Amino acid sequence: MKGGIRIMKEKLGAINALYPTPTTLVGATVGGKPNFITIAHIGIMTHSYISLGMGKSHYSNGGIKENKTFSVCLPSENLVVETDYCGIMTGKNTDKAVLFDVFYGELKTAPMIQQCPVCMECRLYQIIDFPTTDIFIGEIVQTYAEESVLSGKNVNISKLKPLLFDMASKKYWSLGGEVANCWNIGKQFKAEKI
Amino acid sequence: MKGGIRIMKEKLGAINALYPTPTTLVGATVGGKPNFITIAHIGIMTHSYISLGMGKSHYSNGGIKENKTFSVCLPSENLVVETDYCGIMTGKNTDKAVLFDVFYGELKTAPMIQQCPVCMECRLYQIIDFPTTDIFIGEIVQTYAEESVLSGKNVNISKLKPLLFDMASKKYWSLGGEVANCWNIGKQFKAEKI
Repeated sequence: MKGGIRIMKEKLGAINALYPTPTTLVGATVGGKPNFITIAHIGIMTHSYISLGMGKSHYSNGGIKENKTFSVCLPSENLVVETDYCGIMTGKNTDKAVLFDVFYGELKTAPMIQQCPVCMECRLYQIIDFPTTDIFIGEIVQTYAEESVLSGKNVNISKLKPLLFDMASKKYWSLGGEVANCWNIGKQFKAEKI
Repeated sequence: MKGGIRIMKEKLGAINALYPTPTTLVGATVGGKPNFITIAHIGIMTHSYISLGMGKSHYSNGGIKENKTFSVCLPSENLVVETDYCGIMTGKNTDKAVLFDVFYGELKTAPMIQQCPVCMECRLYQIIDFPTTDIFIGEIVQTYAEESVLSGKNVNISKLKPLLFDMASKKYWSLGGEVANCWNIGKQFKAEKI
């Protein structure tokens, strides 16, 4: 039943290969103004809690700690230049919010981006303190989406065209096609009674 | 400079839209035997720390807590049937390790899968206790990869062909093509001096 042949592997060292991840634009209020930073070190914890890994040198971290809110906005492929720009420039000396139409939801200090088809506003739940990185864990409070990326009440990922990030190639990647249905295609094996 | 027009968004409720994520096969030793479970609620915290969100009812959780180790193996698209099977069946009454050639690395209780082109072995660092979910945070200790998915010492994601997961569609998706270079294409804006 085992597929393939036994192939020796190389040791790469302690390399993080858990890619690709969705590239996001994280919104925070810093010094009373909206700021956005590009973050792809994200995580899903539960159906309503997500995490961000953000280097402590970033300008946004202070604002998230102060207001205990942030947003996670999902840019489509067509926003790749703006998204990359927000990862290159720092809010310390650049007003990145001028690139976008900014809106706010239930939380009044989690700026979101109209040009991003999907935005989640989050309440800060916990911070995990790594030596050079703050892990911000947020509870999703509300999710906003353009009708153009919806199928019924669900986000249609093929319409969203998320911008995927890979560290090894230092590239953004697009989403490909459907492979199979989850919790379904594996039943083939089940039926074979291995 | 702002692209696009202002489009009203719909409120979806507190929906987690942070997809797609890489689908992984997580290895653990449970009751002295290797077990594998399909997990796509993953996170990147830093360059060497990753997280898994695993419902408390899963069989593997006890083994991870006991041994304080686990592996994160990355299946390619061609392993979709086996991967989905490991998400449907429980180790409580099914020996899922028989599907694979299992190997071990520096940690002796983090079983890995030869058929997965990339495997990371992890030491448990911290558990975040949600009501029905354990968040296992692991430090990557060693990463193993087949030469067939490497370009030099880097994992080449287009050769890996990761199996991406999306909750809304309940489908596995493939990786698409390259969109642009990170920390680079955004310089277009920078040059424009907005």
